[in-house]
Amino acid sequence: MAELELIGELRALLHRPDPRLSVGIGDDAAVVRGRGYAVTSVDTMVEGVHFRSTQLTGEQIGHRALAGALSDLAAMGVGASDPGDIQAYLALTLPAGAGSLARALIAGAAGLAELCGVTIAGGDLTSGPALTVSFTVVGWTEDPGALARRDGAEPGDLVGVTGTLGGAAAGLALYDGRVPERAIEAETAAALRERHALPRPLLAAGRALAGAGVSAMLDLSDGIASDAATLARASGVTLELELARLPLATGVAEVAQALGQDPARFAACGGEDYELCFTAGRSSRAAIEAALANGDPASPGVTWIGEVVAGDRPEARLRDADGRSARLAGYEHSF
Amino acid sequence: MAELELIGELRALLHRPDPRLSVGIGDDAAVVRGRGYAVTSVDTMVEGVHFRSTQLTGEQIGHRALAGALSDLAAMGVGASDPGDIQAYLALTLPAGAGSLARALIAGAAGLAELCGVTIAGGDLTSGPALTVSFTVVGWTEDPGALARRDGAEPGDLVGVTGTLGGAAAGLALYDGRVPERAIEAETAAALRERHALPRPLLAAGRALAGAGVSAMLDLSDGIASDAATLARASGVTLELELARLPLATGVAEVAQALGQDPARFAACGGEDYELCFTAGRSSRAAIEAALANGDPASPGVTWIGEVVAGDRPEARLRDADGRSARLAGYEHSF
Repeated sequence: MAELELIGELRALLHRPDPRLSVGIGDDAAVVRGRGYAVTSVDTMVEGVHFRSTQLTGEQIGHRALAGALSDLAAMGVGASDPGDIQAYLALTLPAGAGSLARALIAGAAGLAELCGVTIAGGDLTSGPALTVSFTVVGWTEDPGALARRDGAEPGDLVGVTGTLGGAAAGLALYDGRVPERAIEAETAAALRERHALPRPLLAAGRALAGAGVSAMLDLSDGIASDAATLARASGVTLELELARLPLATGVAEVAQALGQDPARFAACGGEDYELCFTAGRSSRAAIEAALANGDPASPGVTWIGEVVAGDRPEARLRDADGRSARLAGYEHSF
Repeated sequence: MAELELIGELRALLHRPDPRLSVGIGDDAAVVRGRGYAVTSVDTMVEGVHFRSTQLTGEQIGHRALAGALSDLAAMGVGASDPGDIQAYLALTLPAGAGSLARALIAGAAGLAELCGVTIAGGDLTSGPALTVSFTVVGWTEDPGALARRDGAEPGDLVGVTGTLGGAAAGLALYDGRVPERAIEAETAAALRERHALPRPLLAAGRALAGAGVSAMLDLSDGIASDAATLARASGVTLELELARLPLATGVAEVAQALGQDPARFAACGGEDYELCFTAGRSSRAAIEAALANGDPASPGVTWIGEVVAGDRPEARLRDADGRSARLAGYEHSF
């Protein structure tokens, strides 16, 4: 009964006291003391589609899957103020013989959970042909009106983004061997690979942004070209973004050039940066910069990259330096 | 952008007014008004492991996956008293070209959700090599002490089970063509196939049993041989069950005989019946029978199948009519 043993090990790995958890792992369901409103998101990563277990360690796969789910809570402005404020539930599908990978994956997720005030409160383990890691995460708020939704952008608002873009896509290009390692410094290459392997969910930044009065927000999982269009459609507006203002991660220019691509377009279409993209009235600009503590090396910082205009067609346009505007293709995977 | 179109269709299919839902499908996360304690479970079904899309319709696959998840809430005693009392979140992994299957699957799940007072409040759609359907379901209770856990069985308690056993396994044997159709009447065969294809989550019965004072309860997903052992381990007791008392579904005897197996053992090891197995003090026996309205054709009814004894080894023993006792193999998949 290897599966039963594995489950026992996973339970032990996840055992962590949590005052809000009334019934934890091992019963038919977990029981958690609620408060106010539950804010719930689901994110799934599949071997061969979202990652390759030949490129990433089990720990990285587990961390990355949980980070992807938590990033959605960050985009709503829900952060953990106390340990246990967020619960995560794991649906793990394992191919035969992947027991040690599963242990590492859970350890990686548990490590990130510890850092973020998250309790892994339950889950389901099944066998299947492809490693599939799905996290459902639940945060809580007393005031749903204070959450940052996707549908509040207004013409005249500014468009901002946290951190830097294109790093995860550049890291993946390095993992894939599509770019020669000599094209880029070793330290920079390692940092880009880490952007792909170990994304940070911006829970604190998302909460600070929601508190500072953003009008709409989402996280960048599919690339800003695609995600900004999603925000535009939800709000019924057009987003005009300047390609030249996109904050590129260090090394993205070199990787894009080695691939024969324009760096800003590469960054705009690169997925899984898990930065936050938001809109805000001009009067909130100073409060947002203060909330993100621009200049503090621990903060991702904010870059203003465009503005919201009234549009016949809700979409995101990316303008070249010479004023030409383009809609770059992307995809969307949540509903 | 076929994926985007599919997501639009799914959203339309799932649009349903729900007063507790503050933000529904289409944002980074769903926002639901909480109350008391959240009771959360996850259940995943994978093509080729838990079902075959050559045997079941998309509607059946969707219904069945949601039913499996809701069955865990039933086993805690959490039922929906009002529409929207339970939320479900769907992580759906689709192989290429499975768009119409996805639509049917969502329709099947939405149909069951409507019947059970469940709102499908969000989810995530990804591509992947195998159709994988994972539901996270959330119910609510004001009083976690009133929930039925797995760890409360005491020596001297009776062991009961709802409904009938072996039907889903017999139905699967028919779908698989392991049993000749002529071995069994057409109407009986259709009913057995339906036990596999369209299980009912026993939310009302679970709630009634929790209210009538069961000491421990779980749902039968892996077969009572295995699930009763899980309950025994959680409670630190031994369950002595009489094989002859197991309530077999009509036609299970014929199917088991056609397979050359003992009917009661076949039923004890057959998974996915989604009946409820519980323990209760002898003084609660009449209240439990009244709560399940034994004799009412709409109720699954209760059968008493054994008792709880103190054991050196927590396990479930299944006794033959001649008193020989055996532990039958099974597996367990939740943590």
